[in-house]
Amino acid sequence: MSLVVVGTIAFDAIETPFGKTDRIIGGSAMYVAWSASNFYQPIKQVSIIGGDFPKEEIDKLSARGVRSEGVEVVPDGKSFFWSGRYHMDMNTRDTLTTDLNVLAQFKPTLPESYQDCEFLMLGNLVPAVQISVIQQLKKRPRLIVLDTMNFWMDTALDDLKKVIGMVDVLLVNDAEARQLSGEYSLPKAALKIQAMGPKYLIIKKGEHGALLFQGKHVFFAPALPLDEVFDPTGAGDTFAGGFMGHLAHTQDISFENMKTAIIVGSAMASFCVEKFGPTRLQSLSKREIDERIEEFVELVSFDIDLIG
Amino acid sequence: MSLVVVGTIAFDAIETPFGKTDRIIGGSAMYVAWSASNFYQPIKQVSIIGGDFPKEEIDKLSARGVRSEGVEVVPDGKSFFWSGRYHMDMNTRDTLTTDLNVLAQFKPTLPESYQDCEFLMLGNLVPAVQISVIQQLKKRPRLIVLDTMNFWMDTALDDLKKVIGMVDVLLVNDAEARQLSGEYSLPKAALKIQAMGPKYLIIKKGEHGALLFQGKHVFFAPALPLDEVFDPTGAGDTFAGGFMGHLAHTQDISFENMKTAIIVGSAMASFCVEKFGPTRLQSLSKREIDERIEEFVELVSFDIDLIG
Repeated sequence: MSLVVVGTIAFDAIETPFGKTDRIIGGSAMYVAWSASNFYQPIKQVSIIGGDFPKEEIDKLSARGVRSEGVEVVPDGKSFFWSGRYHMDMNTRDTLTTDLNVLAQFKPTLPESYQDCEFLMLGNLVPAVQISVIQQLKKRPRLIVLDTMNFWMDTALDDLKKVIGMVDVLLVNDAEARQLSGEYSLPKAALKIQAMGPKYLIIKKGEHGALLFQGKHVFFAPALPLDEVFDPTGAGDTFAGGFMGHLAHTQDISFENMKTAIIVGSAMASFCVEKFGPTRLQSLSKREIDERIEEFVELVSFDIDLIG
Repeated sequence: MSLVVVGTIAFDAIETPFGKTDRIIGGSAMYVAWSASNFYQPIKQVSIIGGDFPKEEIDKLSARGVRSEGVEVVPDGKSFFWSGRYHMDMNTRDTLTTDLNVLAQFKPTLPESYQDCEFLMLGNLVPAVQISVIQQLKKRPRLIVLDTMNFWMDTALDDLKKVIGMVDVLLVNDAEARQLSGEYSLPKAALKIQAMGPKYLIIKKGEHGALLFQGKHVFFAPALPLDEVFDPTGAGDTFAGGFMGHLAHTQDISFENMKTAIIVGSAMASFCVEKFGPTRLQSLSKREIDERIEEFVELVSFDIDLIG
């Protein structure tokens, strides 16, 4: 069995109030794989890259149980490139460049070896590609998680609604949940979105944490207040990777365990933002992860017996 | 011993996307008293009103153990009046009218019967008045909590810093913590503000919950995701009232118990916003409060043993 992740493998160039990078490694399939591989293997990537993408970056992941048979290489093509500039609050950013390059021709064909997919993570991509991957799997995965963004609500709403109807868990931020549902109240938005198909909805709120909804049930996970958010790029994908990695590792997709998985995802995301790109994720020990998760436990624990 | 609350007793007129009121009862000393009196009595108010303020509103509180010897009545004066309009997000509002009226001459003289003050809640007011009340107490209260706002940072910073240096707990929102400290990162802002005097800092983030800082310790309390926020007026004061009421009731001012007190305050605030003015706070049963607190426990509880 395996965890399959569909997403981008890319170059990013990032400016934040704290610094600036040249072209560095990025893309949702990279962040998900670096994060999830701390908890579960094998992870199987579905993506597309150009001949310009460094082979050693694929090799590094391979050493961690991440397979790349599903990563198409276009030798004379260029990899997807994104550059952006973050504002002081780190919640808003301006896109400076989006060069789709080989991503414009991304029509993945799943390798036969990916048919053992038990957990499917669909990173933020054009909904038609997300649909195609689900349709190519002969056996429906045990859990399908979908990440998307407002751009697809504006430009491909019909396809987006179709793929939303095919998945178990939807990941969006609060503004996107409001846009998709037409409801300002998040609990009302959650009910409407669940009526579109997904049994679970995760609303990411950046520095304000995350909410998990299932029916009338709701769980609130905090974000760790950080001294410094150095680069928020990839934090959402890293969160998704920790979430999926924990579920696959424990083989438990109950609401109760999803709560724990969200804490794991939040802990991983809190590492991601400490450095540019996936750098910080590449040097994490089990002990560091456990200690960070323990900080989350401390952060929200209180003694209810004291209430008389 | 008693819980003394210094603040406004006022008329408000409120517009929200969900409705509009004529003149209704408001003011920080009202919200704090209605909230705290669920947990502790006696509560002693320090405020000023005009001859236009309905006596039955004072009587209603009196029946709940709230004393008003410290509420000065100016028979031919008019009570403080504020009107405002909330935007869709309920986190921002425009002030339409601020008629200080009798509040302009507010120079409280503490009644002798208030010298048993054990817990002192200084509601948002001109810092000179807050200082004067502390100075009139012959014995320092066990705990002094201060609420303030950006307006005083802009117009009375020296006095504000002086009173901040005299208290144990400061309550501000995230933007105010950043303004006061000059630090964007909230953990860094918290350390700087604690260096100004208060051992504890509570940062209120509205729908995103609240943070409690003490030294390097931090606690994150969620806000309940609500179907409808009808009127946020007084939510911060209601939070403060629940916080103080719980501490006074339990007679325990440890960091551990402050965490619980923040949950109690958050639960009370979640009731406050359900109706215009303090209406909802006036009809609460112990059972409703306990159930709401239980919802907060559910909201953040997860099983850490599941992490393998």
